Amino acid sequence: MIQSVQRAVQVLRLLAAEGSRLGVTELSERLGVAKPTVHAMLRTLEAEGLVVQDRESSKYGLGPGLLHLGNAYLDGHELRARSMTWADALATRANEAVWVGVLTGDHVLVVHHAFRPEGAVQILEVGASIPWNTSALGKAMVAFGPEAEEKRLLEGRLAVLTGRSVTSPDRLAEQLEEARQSGYAIEDQESAIGDASIAAPVFDRSGQVAGAIGVVGPVERLLAEDRRAELAVAVRETARNLSRDLGAGRGYPRRVG
Amino acid sequence: MIQSVQRAVQVLRLLAAEGSRLGVTELSERLGVAKPTVHAMLRTLEAEGLVVQDRESSKYGLGPGLLHLGNAYLDGHELRARSMTWADALATRANEAVWVGVLTGDHVLVVHHAFRPEGAVQILEVGASIPWNTSALGKAMVAFGPEAEEKRLLEGRLAVLTGRSVTSPDRLAEQLEEARQSGYAIEDQESAIGDASIAAPVFDRSGQVAGAIGVVGPVERLLAEDRRAELAVAVRETARNLSRDLGAGRGYPRRVG
Repeated sequence: MIQSVQRAVQVLRLLAAEGSRLGVTELSERLGVAKPTVHAMLRTLEAEGLVVQDRESSKYGLGPGLLHLGNAYLDGHELRARSMTWADALATRANEAVWVGVLTGDHVLVVHHAFRPEGAVQILEVGASIPWNTSALGKAMVAFGPEAEEKRLLEGRLAVLTGRSVTSPDRLAEQLEEARQSGYAIEDQESAIGDASIAAPVFDRSGQVAGAIGVVGPVERLLAEDRRAELAVAVRETARNLSRDLGAGRGYPRRVG
Repeated sequence: MIQSVQRAVQVLRLLAAEGSRLGVTELSERLGVAKPTVHAMLRTLEAEGLVVQDRESSKYGLGPGLLHLGNAYLDGHELRARSMTWADALATRANEAVWVGVLTGDHVLVVHHAFRPEGAVQILEVGASIPWNTSALGKAMVAFGPEAEEKRLLEGRLAVLTGRSVTSPDRLAEQLEEARQSGYAIEDQESAIGDASIAAPVFDRSGQVAGAIGVVGPVERLLAEDRRAELAVAVRETARNLSRDLGAGRGYPRRVG
């Protein structure tokens, strides 16, 4: 490991978490690193466009180079590229917004978002990061991912975003087992009151979970008695087709060793 | 400057430019850095989620942490946040797609994209990076930015994306002067055949150019005799209002000293 590179990433993370600009002194205190070192780090990152210094306050914030790199990540993302037409078709079939996500650490990262065809103003959620346990995408991926990962995640921090977020490891383990039985996972207002989601896992040619795809929308529409099963079938079929497209074998969905 | 941090950013840039995964040997050759050093760098970046190693090929690609950081950059971007309602209103008024961009190096980075209200399938261009001289957003920013920057950019590399891209520094200087006279810049199929754009600069409370906003669409619609002036007025008015919203003073547009 290269310490200065680790520290540089820490600086970027702190600026990302803060959401506002930070000065050299603040960064030095939070990192426990001497001010001249922090200053040299910031100068280097600034020269590379990863941070910018505000002219008025002299404080530092994230730079445009990160957006460029983030976009390059998306452009090179095979799951995202392959999921586009499938996500559009599912959005049309379900008349709901569709998200495609990958698991990164204990969060789901949204890599594609197809808008609801009939929707009003919608905010693009690509790049959004959601705790795995409050997301149907997250539960679908963990349910079909390696058992060791499930164990680690159930023993780790379980986020609370609403009064309905599930934080009991036992209850979550039950939900994951239900997802394995049915082939899809459900989230009922666990990340935002009023919103629900139904998602299924996507596999790649190595047989591993590559991500998940699901519909997201108002709980009244998504989890209504007469609609829920129909949506779940549409989600699962789409996830299976997308998996085949990525080179996965038959026998969907099959848990990873 | 901290060399290892510079090199880490170089690794990310190479992976972004390549668009596909690279192995340790390839990276070592391209960077002119010994393989063990490259390996340590990649391990560090992998632990931080900025690169990922492919299970099958052992090669490295960009990681999801970059999307997260890129999104945090967008979330903290004041121009982007403030431009949303203005961009939507302009898209509705013009019935065209609207882009908001910032200048980074010699490229325009698109930080917001409001879809054309009546449009069919549209690809979100947030994060796209376009050479300044082939973009109306870029010309608008350079025309009203510092003279030293204009000089530097006119003397630098002038990109060619189509047969209509302008690469004569004299002709570009004329176009920039025209933009200063009219308050808006035009791009006529200089980045893609069939597409045109009209853009105006946005200023912040320090009186500096913070970015630019403009309409983008088919040349037949945008630059038609009877429509062009009307669109230019709409773009300029929007850019002026957005500038006021960002705290800029009266007297729009005024070139930075």
